[in-house]
Amino acid sequence: MATIKERSKAIRAVHDTMDVLSGKWKIAIITSLSFGEKRYSEILKEVEGISGKMLTRELKDMEMNLLIKREVLNAQPVTVQYSLTKYSENLLPIICNLRDWGTEHRKKIIGK
Amino acid sequence: MATIKERSKAIRAVHDTMDVLSGKWKIAIITSLSFGEKRYSEILKEVEGISGKMLTRELKDMEMNLLIKREVLNAQPVTVQYSLTKYSENLLPIICNLRDWGTEHRKKIIGK
Repeated sequence: MATIKERSKAIRAVHDTMDVLSGKWKIAIITSLSFGEKRYSEILKEVEGISGKMLTRELKDMEMNLLIKREVLNAQPVTVQYSLTKYSENLLPIICNLRDWGTEHRKKIIGK
Repeated sequence: MATIKERSKAIRAVHDTMDVLSGKWKIAIITSLSFGEKRYSEILKEVEGISGKMLTRELKDMEMNLLIKREVLNAQPVTVQYSLTKYSENLLPIICNLRDWGTEHRKKIIGK
């Protein structure tokens, strides 16, 4: 059986992931980019309700956390494109599990 | 490709699960109970740093969300025992995935 130290390390790791996914917008941005790389304006349109200022801040934070890649395309006018890193693609199965459990939970709690 | 409506429903479901798991203590309590049913005093001892008042509130909330079962054992003195419901046991693989991703993330971010 896991020692108390191992258990608290495990719980801290879970909270680390929750912190990365926390907030109203990160999961929506990851979901949007999971369908392929996108320009800033495309993400802004697709993620319902997010402001330009908020999207800029979230993209910077996600880039720092190595969740997304930012590429400047050699085009006229200059275009900036965002995509998920290999690393954040590992989050997609977790996000799907969270979605499935949440869907069941809503039925169970609202259906009771 | 998922419609915008389907996508926002999926994102809402993910947020529902995150809400259930949110806060400092729920995951620690679920992890503690994942090793078997426990009495209040045992949980209080195992979940580092939680106060009695906070544990009482979290257990009530988790019972309402059908995550745990509360049983009054026919013993002298009367004993109350908590255990995970079948339903919340479905969360354990998700919590393990969150733990594994968080462990890698910490290495990657701190290791850089």
